[in-house]
Amino acid sequence: MSRKGLIDDLVSANHILFKEGVLDGFGHVSVRDERNPERFLLSRSIAPATVTARDVMEFGMDGEPLDARGRKPYLERTLHSEIYRARPDVVAVVHSHSPALIPFGITGTPLKPVFHMSGFLGSATPIFEIRDAGGPATDMLIRDRKLGAALARTLGNAPFALMRGHGSVAVGGSLKQVVYRAIYAEVNARLQSEALRLGTITYLNDAEAANASRTNDSVIDRPWGLWKKRAKEIG
Amino acid sequence: MSRKGLIDDLVSANHILFKEGVLDGFGHVSVRDERNPERFLLSRSIAPATVTARDVMEFGMDGEPLDARGRKPYLERTLHSEIYRARPDVVAVVHSHSPALIPFGITGTPLKPVFHMSGFLGSATPIFEIRDAGGPATDMLIRDRKLGAALARTLGNAPFALMRGHGSVAVGGSLKQVVYRAIYAEVNARLQSEALRLGTITYLNDAEAANASRTNDSVIDRPWGLWKKRAKEIG
Amino acid sequence: MSRKGLIDDLVSANHILFKEGVLDGFGHVSVRDERNPERFLLSRSIAPATVTARDVMEFGMDGEPLDARGRKPYLERTLHSEIYRARPDVVAVVHSHSPALIPFGITGTPLKPVFHMSGFLGSATPIFEIRDAGGPATDMLIRDRKLGAALARTLGNAPFALMRGHGSVAVGGSLKQVVYRAIYAEVNARLQSEALRLGTITYLNDAEAANASRTNDSVIDRPWGLWKKRAKEIG
Amino acid sequence: MSRKGLIDDLVSANHILFKEGVLDGFGHVSVRDERNPERFLLSRSIAPATVTARDVMEFGMDGEPLDARGRKPYLERTLHSEIYRARPDVVAVVHSHSPALIPFGITGTPLKPVFHMSGFLGSATPIFEIRDAGGPATDMLIRDRKLGAALARTLGNAPFALMRGHGSVAVGGSLKQVVYRAIYAEVNARLQSEALRLGTITYLNDAEAANASRTNDSVIDRPWGLWKKRAKEIG
Repeated sequence: MSRKGLIDDLVSANHILFKEGVLDGFGHVSVRDERNPERFLLSRSIAPATVTARDVMEFGMDGEPLDARGRKPYLERTLHSEIYRARPDVVAVVHSHSPALIPFGITGTPLKPVFHMSGFLGSATPIFEIRDAGGPATDMLIRDRKLGAALARTLGNAPFALMRGHGSVAVGGSLKQVVYRAIYAEVNARLQSEALRLGTITYLNDAEAANASRTNDSVIDRPWGLWKKRAKEIG
Repeated sequence: MSRKGLIDDLVSANHILFKEGVLDGFGHVSVRDERNPERFLLSRSIAPATVTARDVMEFGMDGEPLDARGRKPYLERTLHSEIYRARPDVVAVVHSHSPALIPFGITGTPLKPVFHMSGFLGSATPIFEIRDAGGPATDMLIRDRKLGAALARTLGNAPFALMRGHGSVAVGGSLKQVVYRAIYAEVNARLQSEALRLGTITYLNDAEAANASRTNDSVIDRPWGLWKKRAKEIG
Repeated sequence: MSRKGLIDDLVSANHILFKEGVLDGFGHVSVRDERNPERFLLSRSIAPATVTARDVMEFGMDGEPLDARGRKPYLERTLHSEIYRARPDVVAVVHSHSPALIPFGITGTPLKPVFHMSGFLGSATPIFEIRDAGGPATDMLIRDRKLGAALARTLGNAPFALMRGHGSVAVGGSLKQVVYRAIYAEVNARLQSEALRLGTITYLNDAEAANASRTNDSVIDRPWGLWKKRAKEIG
Repeated sequence: MSRKGLIDDLVSANHILFKEGVLDGFGHVSVRDERNPERFLLSRSIAPATVTARDVMEFGMDGEPLDARGRKPYLERTLHSEIYRARPDVVAVVHSHSPALIPFGITGTPLKPVFHMSGFLGSATPIFEIRDAGGPATDMLIRDRKLGAALARTLGNAPFALMRGHGSVAVGGSLKQVVYRAIYAEVNARLQSEALRLGTITYLNDAEAANASRTNDSVIDRPWGLWKKRAKEIG
């Protein structure tokens, strides 16, 4: 994919994640430059719904911008860089405060796949407790490399991690995949929350989760096209 | 109804089910060709909100397209074909992952009619457990005739069935009726879920359910016209 | 108010109640003709969101249209006529299936005012059980004068009644007041439901409810103007 | 900031709070005139979504308009004036009935910060019981200076207070800050409510809350810009 195509997709991902209720005025999405895997792209510090190609900056593996030209980066850019460092397989990262997931992180309720659309969650979703790495008096943000590295360790090989009192992080092998995961992790949380009040849940087992995940990856262009259409309007 | 009229209604049904929150980027709706009852119509594999007349394909009772012309069919088309084979009375089928119904399927909570709008549900809604027919390691999809036939057996003579960890299926004697059922099954699930937290529910009894269902069928053009108007905008 | 003004307000009331989520494809709102109090106005049997002045019909106290001219009336028009007969103070009636109220009717949970906006509810909301008047095998609808009269008896002097397995009815001294009541009864149900899960509720006492209700009636033009603006778009 | 700029921002704040679901046809937002701190600006008594610059009136510390010119002020203007009198640090005040917060006020459930976005809530949110100052038969409104002063005493040095059976009040050092607080207090209530059903919540501790609040204040222009864009449409 051309650099222009990659940037266009990153802009779309920003708008989609806003429109679908994953991001509000906060949160961010980045993509690795596959032709130069030590670099990734991320918007300057603005609301995702308002991101344009001109807002996209390039970052190195230390989380610092290479071409700032006066543009202010997000405070939490090392959340992205440290995951890219620890996970060569990861091509895209979403960090959000999407609402249905927060209650899982703050109560320690295990987030697990309740239906095939969220099979990618697998059998266990790690929860990042910032007090373990940052002590009892942080501002909750991943604002330096040490905290980014600690989050990446909690994430391990998983596609998704909850962050207590803050939000969550999704990773994927492409922008389309990470957007899909961020959206359906939120849907899964909503459904699981509701179902926990009704009775005992039969979750997908490991094989069902893995197989469903593989199948959905094969049709990932379908929702992406729809989401792009819907995202044209900011309202 | 002319073939063109039937295809136009199928396109509308796709858009309506998206707009009313029954389908998202996934799920599908089909209609039997009443002049040739061994055939049914179903879109190629795209998001329902984006379906146009040109995307509609014809299928036989084996679930295979008769006129593919390079268009890719849905993976789950045998969900439709096997129901049409088993149920000569069925003219239209909706398969969805609509959110309020998922918690019922995964917890085994009996879905029952809480108000007259969903009287069609009758006294018991079957739940399809794919492990019974497909073993413990499927990808949850109805991807062959054997699984389609098993789902049709679980559905039996009912108008609606839940699918554990996946979604649900509604059937009807017309597109208007199946769209009505898919929408109000979802509404019923939302209301029943909420009411279960408040106390003990007085459900419609069998006579009330049957009578209310008959009455609502007599005014089914009313919501259909409204839904068509609303569905003009994709947002 | 001129007859044209009254019809225009009735059309607005239809559109507002749809837009604010009180009515969907079903439900209806009527207004008494104050210059001829034995008559009331009600749309022909179409979706409220699509009502225009030409759809408005005139009815007598027997619930029959005086000027049908081929237009089909709602099946439940005696719900309106019998309330107007029993309650000379009532100038407008809304019948809806609005979602947050259904769980109260089907579980027998007392609906009570949780905040000043719904003070009009007073200390007790009656619940209509159609089996008492219509036996165990109705279609749940108020489809004749006997059932309409039974509902009016259950309503008594109250501004609002729940109907088990069906919906609710709001009455008021004007279209603006009844629209306000239908909207805020629904809001109250949502809030009360949520609060019942958190703990023990301090409800408005009788004096607070009555006083708040009087105050809100004095500023009722404020939300009406807003709702009219919002209702211009059907979506 | 020029007077015109201040009025424009106040108009935007009205529209934003409607669009983001904090205000409906009721509630209000005011701002102190920093060049003349004994004065504050507040719309005449209309729905916030419809406020224009011409509706903005100037008030003194007694809650009376200085330039009414026939415009009717809100009944609850002393809610604003008495807080400005008691809290020289406060530059802007929002009073709302936003839905997720009502259940906390009426059940006495402590509202506490569940994530970094609502760190400003600190460790305890006071609840105003109007019966303590106004007796058992008020209309729930802050309709005179005595009740305004009692509310200000309950608020104390806090940024936020719940009002039993009525709503809540947020205060801030600027319009942007108070709008942020009104929006994220509502989000926090929604998340806390949901999480309380899942298990035991780990809240932000005092240091986390204070630090997160400071950080978010430093990026407050980001959501404000987004909210202004979204608020352009009344729907």
